[in-house]
Amino acid sequence: MENVFSEKVLKKFTNEVFLAIGCSRADASLATDVLISADLRGIDSHGVARLVGYVRLWEAGRINSTPDIRVVHETPSTAVVDGDSGLGLVVAPKAMEIAMNKATQVGSGWVSVKNSNHFGIAGYHTLMAVGKDMIGIAMTNASALVAPTFATERMLGTNPIAVAIPADKQPPFVADMATTTAANGKLEILQRLNQEAPNGWIQDSRGNSSANPHELKKGGALLPLGGDREHGSHKGYALGSVVDIFSAVFSGANYGPWAPPFVSFLPLPENPVGEGLGHFLGAMRIDAFRPADELKQHMDNWIERFRKTAAIEGKSVLIPGDPEREMEAIRIKEGIPLNEKVVKDLKEVGRKLKVELKS
Amino acid sequence: MENVFSEKVLKKFTNEVFLAIGCSRADASLATDVLISADLRGIDSHGVARLVGYVRLWEAGRINSTPDIRVVHETPSTAVVDGDSGLGLVVAPKAMEIAMNKATQVGSGWVSVKNSNHFGIAGYHTLMAVGKDMIGIAMTNASALVAPTFATERMLGTNPIAVAIPADKQPPFVADMATTTAANGKLEILQRLNQEAPNGWIQDSRGNSSANPHELKKGGALLPLGGDREHGSHKGYALGSVVDIFSAVFSGANYGPWAPPFVSFLPLPENPVGEGLGHFLGAMRIDAFRPADELKQHMDNWIERFRKTAAIEGKSVLIPGDPEREMEAIRIKEGIPLNEKVVKDLKEVGRKLKVELKS
Repeated sequence: MENVFSEKVLKKFTNEVFLAIGCSRADASLATDVLISADLRGIDSHGVARLVGYVRLWEAGRINSTPDIRVVHETPSTAVVDGDSGLGLVVAPKAMEIAMNKATQVGSGWVSVKNSNHFGIAGYHTLMAVGKDMIGIAMTNASALVAPTFATERMLGTNPIAVAIPADKQPPFVADMATTTAANGKLEILQRLNQEAPNGWIQDSRGNSSANPHELKKGGALLPLGGDREHGSHKGYALGSVVDIFSAVFSGANYGPWAPPFVSFLPLPENPVGEGLGHFLGAMRIDAFRPADELKQHMDNWIERFRKTAAIEGKSVLIPGDPEREMEAIRIKEGIPLNEKVVKDLKEVGRKLKVELKS
Repeated sequence: MENVFSEKVLKKFTNEVFLAIGCSRADASLATDVLISADLRGIDSHGVARLVGYVRLWEAGRINSTPDIRVVHETPSTAVVDGDSGLGLVVAPKAMEIAMNKATQVGSGWVSVKNSNHFGIAGYHTLMAVGKDMIGIAMTNASALVAPTFATERMLGTNPIAVAIPADKQPPFVADMATTTAANGKLEILQRLNQEAPNGWIQDSRGNSSANPHELKKGGALLPLGGDREHGSHKGYALGSVVDIFSAVFSGANYGPWAPPFVSFLPLPENPVGEGLGHFLGAMRIDAFRPADELKQHMDNWIERFRKTAAIEGKSVLIPGDPEREMEAIRIKEGIPLNEKVVKDLKEVGRKLKVELKS
């Protein structure tokens, strides 16, 4: 059975939880906005369902609720930010602000972040730029779940890339994707329902293709976008690697198999090569290339032409960002459904922190 | 039967052909270096086999061998370059020089190019940056061969993305990939040999998956990386779209189905939305993030750790760029094999331009 909550109720609860673990008012409000935006956009695996995980990391001393987020190295168009173990939900938007300020000054800004943790949905951060007539780019590394082509070992996270580009009359183009065949959230749903996974999503511990989503808990791995060598998994592996390097090697965070886990019950990898998780955030002013109106009109034309693409019967060609935006319109109106397990966990964390979740 | 040519012989011939169509000495030499680097690295579809195509475009008046390549708009970290219908093989490296100069000044440089044409292998341009302790990024759009997810119509080119990152003792990381399941060059090989394509590479004109590589000539299409919706083709479609927009919407080139064809016997698309093809080139100084030595040592560590990944029996995990570098070492020593049809075409174009291809 699912319970449906309004955006307002979930935001109030989430905000109070972040305040209860010691976040400032501004940080709690920002982290809440990032987290609930995932639920609104239908990316349930990255929304309020993760709130309990953040609290547990704070309890384990792995998240600092009053971080001193600061630039440790910079040029006019680049910076490295130390997140001081803060919530990624707070560190990433602040790093994006720095990227946007640099873009305002010199056309573009690129910020690599160390000493952070999970930053919610990448798309949120890119949309900050769109509102200022900028292109937004966001990436993050994550704990290793993905086997490179031919590997039997997990070496990379699902390492998402998001790119948002403003248009004029059309809504913005927003690509937001894990660099794997399927995001981990989709696997979790199959695990919960005991359903088989399509071929090409996962492999077992010996590197054989498998349909069993539980193989992930027995030494198996997610597969890079492409699935296998014949279908281009070396490209998905390369993309995930680029995200890992831009996010963590550039900044001084932990990369590859050293990326720290999201769940607090797993130990931190030994012999760390850096600090925390890494992100990479970019902003480019559109008028750094063409007059803003002209560029946005061509984006409208691009989007309108692609919407009209001849399609397979009964289907239509979507623009990246369409499904999430449609879901957001529905959930703002009809509320956000949460499964029973998530509600139970939230109520439990609420009791512990003396915050009430109203239905 | 294949004929094997030394790098030196092919470069001499190619250089003389470019001189014969009116290129300056510097431009002919640069274009030759870009083109033959593809043959050396084993990307035969983008090497000297394309020389005849460039000459035909010049004959058709679609390539200007004495272009005035110039910046038409800029900020400290960005620029738009007008390629003046020059060879992409010349325009792209010059645009990369501009990006690198900006990176020297302000940390990073990003150049979108219009009014160009095919630029050879994307990896070449990114490696220019590596030699200067910079990260190099290159993308280009191309004429429409790829159907977005659910489409029956070709809307995007194979739109490659390349990223090169310097290391210290290790060779650089070089990802260079079409945003499709398989590059068009691989399809051309199957067409020549009348062999079947793996599932997920192509579809027929009605959008059904097909193994017949000749479907491409009957209204079929290449498929985005992922292959189908269940395996993430919407991600490959989104990546190809980002390349199209960065390369052509930012610069004022033709995007989507308006991108001009490489072959001169096809008419230019009607009602163009811009000028020529577009590229996007980027450079970031590594010391814009961390001290160069420190970053390169961590890249060594990244590469060494990934090389040691536990692998399926009889296989090993490669670093992006390994296969091309190994091929280059072999071909520098043993020469470049060309198939008979390519040699025949080259000799024919040589006769026309009074340039001799020696075996």
